[in-house]
Amino acid sequence: MTGSFVSPAMRDRVRGLATPVAMALGRLGLTPNALTLIGFGGTCVAAYAAANRKWAIAGLLVLAFGVFDLFDGALARATGRTSRLGAFLDSTFDRAGEAIVYIGVAAGALSFGFKAGAILSAAAMAAAFMVSYTRAKAESLGFTPGTGMASVGLAPREIRLVILALGLIVAVGTSGDRAAKLASLSAPLALIVVLATITVIQRVLHVRSQAKEG
Amino acid sequence: MTGSFVSPAMRDRVRGLATPVAMALGRLGLTPNALTLIGFGGTCVAAYAAANRKWAIAGLLVLAFGVFDLFDGALARATGRTSRLGAFLDSTFDRAGEAIVYIGVAAGALSFGFKAGAILSAAAMAAAFMVSYTRAKAESLGFTPGTGMASVGLAPREIRLVILALGLIVAVGTSGDRAAKLASLSAPLALIVVLATITVIQRVLHVRSQAKEG
Repeated sequence: MTGSFVSPAMRDRVRGLATPVAMALGRLGLTPNALTLIGFGGTCVAAYAAANRKWAIAGLLVLAFGVFDLFDGALARATGRTSRLGAFLDSTFDRAGEAIVYIGVAAGALSFGFKAGAILSAAAMAAAFMVSYTRAKAESLGFTPGTGMASVGLAPREIRLVILALGLIVAVGTSGDRAAKLASLSAPLALIVVLATITVIQRVLHVRSQAKEG
Repeated sequence: MTGSFVSPAMRDRVRGLATPVAMALGRLGLTPNALTLIGFGGTCVAAYAAANRKWAIAGLLVLAFGVFDLFDGALARATGRTSRLGAFLDSTFDRAGEAIVYIGVAAGALSFGFKAGAILSAAAMAAAFMVSYTRAKAESLGFTPGTGMASVGLAPREIRLVILALGLIVAVGTSGDRAAKLASLSAPLALIVVLATITVIQRVLHVRSQAKEG
């Protein structure tokens, strides 16, 4: 079960593309941790835009800062400044940023009376958190997620953010039609819930089989 | 900074009280993992009750299954059946159960038009998840949370569940008065957001100081 929409090879290639940009940012005097904080700040702005129903801006910011998030790790690797603290801060702010985006989407959905969208957004947040939590918990207990499924997962953060951003952007194109707007917000959130839940189940089964082997 | 509402000594004492009950459940043929699953199921029922505005039932079930959650670990310890897989499943289902309760509370709040309550519930879920995530991630990177603050935290799950359950139960006593009901739902959720956020900040600072020492 190595099924994922992002193969390790593809991830390496994207990381390679990010390096020159990350190095340029580094030459401006920015540290990897500074890039982590800027990315978190940008994601908070995306959440604020979603809460105010600026769906297109929110979607574009989610995409932009999803890409931006590649640069902290790329800069750290390129300059030999990777650290456990940097990895901890990167992961922690990624989680917080993603959670805040879902809260923003929930607030935006409620502001035009779309209750199911708010609940779906909370469920997407929960499912996304479970994906990250099961990996961190498994690793803290000495399980090795491996290079395939469990280290990347069926729907890692990059894929979740692309799904969410496309949904937000499409929600604008349907500005006149309320039903279409509800659908274009609901569909990506529901997809995230499904994919993330499958990923969590895969990880639990993977840990269980590893425990039985050991 | 070892500030917490639950001292390690108090936790040990409560665990001691749980052991005889856990042993009795074990003699009925239940395994620690079965107790984990039963606790998760009960928590889902609490969430369903909250979603249907049965606040008193939801609060009592949250309390009951919060206590019940002590038994899986107690039985495993008392019978020498602690395992990494058991610890992983216990933590994973605890997180999933807590998330589902917050989604239930959000749905219940929305069902009587209380949008801020739904957003507060999503924020409480995010903050609670961040508390658990920062610990697991720190441990996976080899940081040692220690016996004080970071292993227990200002507001560990037990305290969060008690705060939430009391809020839900009080919400019933104010059944006639809509404003009082909104307050009795909002106050515990806001308190959880504040305490959990402080705990996350404490943990990040703790990891940072440990990284600087190392």
